[in-house]
Amino acid sequence: MAGLADIIACDSTICSIEDGVLRYRGYAIEELAEHASFEEVIYLLWYGRLPNCHELKALKQDLAENAALPPRIYDLLRMYAPWGNAMAKLRTCLSFLTHFDDEVMDHSFAADHRKAVRIMARMAAIVAAIERIRSGREPVDPATIRTQSLAELFLWLLAGEKPEPVAVKAMDKCLVLHAEHELNASTFAARVTVSTMSDTYSGMVSAIGTLKGALHGNANEQVALMLEEIGDVDRVEAYIDGKIADGGLIMGFGHRVYKNGDPRARVLKELARELGEWRQDTRWYDMAVKVAGLVREKKGLLPNVDFYSAVVYTYLGIPRDLFTLVFAISRTSGWLAHIMEQHENNRLIRPRANYTGKGAGTWLPLADR
Amino acid sequence: MAGLADIIACDSTICSIEDGVLRYRGYAIEELAEHASFEEVIYLLWYGRLPNCHELKALKQDLAENAALPPRIYDLLRMYAPWGNAMAKLRTCLSFLTHFDDEVMDHSFAADHRKAVRIMARMAAIVAAIERIRSGREPVDPATIRTQSLAELFLWLLAGEKPEPVAVKAMDKCLVLHAEHELNASTFAARVTVSTMSDTYSGMVSAIGTLKGALHGNANEQVALMLEEIGDVDRVEAYIDGKIADGGLIMGFGHRVYKNGDPRARVLKELARELGEWRQDTRWYDMAVKVAGLVREKKGLLPNVDFYSAVVYTYLGIPRDLFTLVFAISRTSGWLAHIMEQHENNRLIRPRANYTGKGAGTWLPLADR
Repeated sequence: MAGLADIIACDSTICSIEDGVLRYRGYAIEELAEHASFEEVIYLLWYGRLPNCHELKALKQDLAENAALPPRIYDLLRMYAPWGNAMAKLRTCLSFLTHFDDEVMDHSFAADHRKAVRIMARMAAIVAAIERIRSGREPVDPATIRTQSLAELFLWLLAGEKPEPVAVKAMDKCLVLHAEHELNASTFAARVTVSTMSDTYSGMVSAIGTLKGALHGNANEQVALMLEEIGDVDRVEAYIDGKIADGGLIMGFGHRVYKNGDPRARVLKELARELGEWRQDTRWYDMAVKVAGLVREKKGLLPNVDFYSAVVYTYLGIPRDLFTLVFAISRTSGWLAHIMEQHENNRLIRPRANYTGKGAGTWLPLADR
Repeated sequence: MAGLADIIACDSTICSIEDGVLRYRGYAIEELAEHASFEEVIYLLWYGRLPNCHELKALKQDLAENAALPPRIYDLLRMYAPWGNAMAKLRTCLSFLTHFDDEVMDHSFAADHRKAVRIMARMAAIVAAIERIRSGREPVDPATIRTQSLAELFLWLLAGEKPEPVAVKAMDKCLVLHAEHELNASTFAARVTVSTMSDTYSGMVSAIGTLKGALHGNANEQVALMLEEIGDVDRVEAYIDGKIADGGLIMGFGHRVYKNGDPRARVLKELARELGEWRQDTRWYDMAVKVAGLVREKKGLLPNVDFYSAVVYTYLGIPRDLFTLVFAISRTSGWLAHIMEQHENNRLIRPRANYTGKGAGTWLPLADR
């Protein structure tokens, strides 16, 4: 009961996690990470099968054509203090974006899919604009960037220059790995929200607010913070021993639905190693491997998706407090798949609470209390 | 399973619905509607017992002192098109408000309660500002209004003049009746969101987005729309017969957890009657009573909280598309009680899906599809 652990909340055809194997629409995550681009995964999640080359081309073109932001979004971002919480900014931007979409209240299959394209197309640009505006730089207009890869678009918009192919490939793989994960808390929140026949943007906003928590998407930022605090591979053991002695939580380990390790962590570990070599700086990778070894030995816990992704994002030059936003760019594809599935065959999600409070009371006038 | 109907999602000491009796912290809703002010109900929901006169005075003063909005909220509202969806504006304002609260990331009991006061205090002012700015009028600064009743404050800010006592009393009763209702979808969404240790504002934003749906808070607006369409008591029967023949949904009837009628509807019906007499215009009340009689006779359904509240709000002069926002002002008290309860004894809310999709597939290169 507590936390609805192992309770079935709905049927879904999007994602399965069985015996520790994660599959999107039947395809194992290892195979997708090896072969698929993020755009192929988006098509797969939304339409239930892999696209042929015409379908993939059309989706990429749609995404590219819809990437530009309404200028008011930049005005909104300029109203913020630079140090404001980045996930809260993203949440507010998505909420605000509602006002520039004429189809918000049309929950038909066709309109939901058009909105999905518009939202997916803009996520990378919003996150990059948050970073550039808070750091006093002009945001780059996505319309000026020639690419049909969301991974390349994001890194390009963020840095203001064409990223190296190795970085694009790694970014793309991260987007594939984080795209979808069944009824994780943020996806579930999105489904609860749209189950009242509320709109896609409301679902997105609930999902972003839910991902923001330290027990969910924000864990990757916490991992990076821990590695920064450790600072050197020689200090790992003392740090972990201290944490364990204090009873503190070590972020990035364990997962409610994987008891024998998170398959995404294995792919990300390899990616972190490759990027460390590319950067000619294996310190982050070495620290992470040592932390993982000690936590396994002393607590019996295995790393989850958040652990090595923190290392990968660090090597990609992404500011630490944007890690959860990068997760959000990717998971938007899965959130939208679930929002559309919920709308297609809707039933209000409304559980009950077990009342453990006071028994029936009789009103007492204010003067007598 | 479907919609988690009758599934227990958590323990709670806030609200019980047993055998058709709704109680906040042990007090029956009929007694609260008869005797309690909204501020007493807020105290009751947040602290678990009725306040004494000193505690009530302190809470009222806290709420009054925190009602003023950061000027940037007005700037944000001026960026919107007047016809933009009002619930989406409210959702965006709450998300934006995060940036003016220094304690967002402090989830301690004390900080959560201080945030609850700040949020509760500002809801009425935000909703009123949405209306005044979109209609080209200056918003009224809450600091200039001398009242310690949120009901009076709201009507005053909305109309720009002191409301009549009978209107204030009715508004207050509506706020009491809508304050809390166990794990309804919006409250549940808020709990899912903060169960990741995300913040109070994220929880509020999820709740508002969820309430926005036609199967939840927006039903009151749909009821008013129906009554406007009917227009006269003589046309009720033909309209209802037509709706039933078309298989259309008649909003404001039936409830998943009340099989023998919603106790709040009975109180609101009486309130609607009183206000019709006060306005010397019983047309809305008469139409509603006739609709309710026919729907009961022909479909066996009883009115829920949304049905007569639409009539009450109409008599109070509230624009139709703000009805769901008025619901939100009231339910904020319950949302915040649940957010605080979730944070106090947290467990991540993460159910599972029943996978009904494709079996395991093997990757096919793009050229072969």
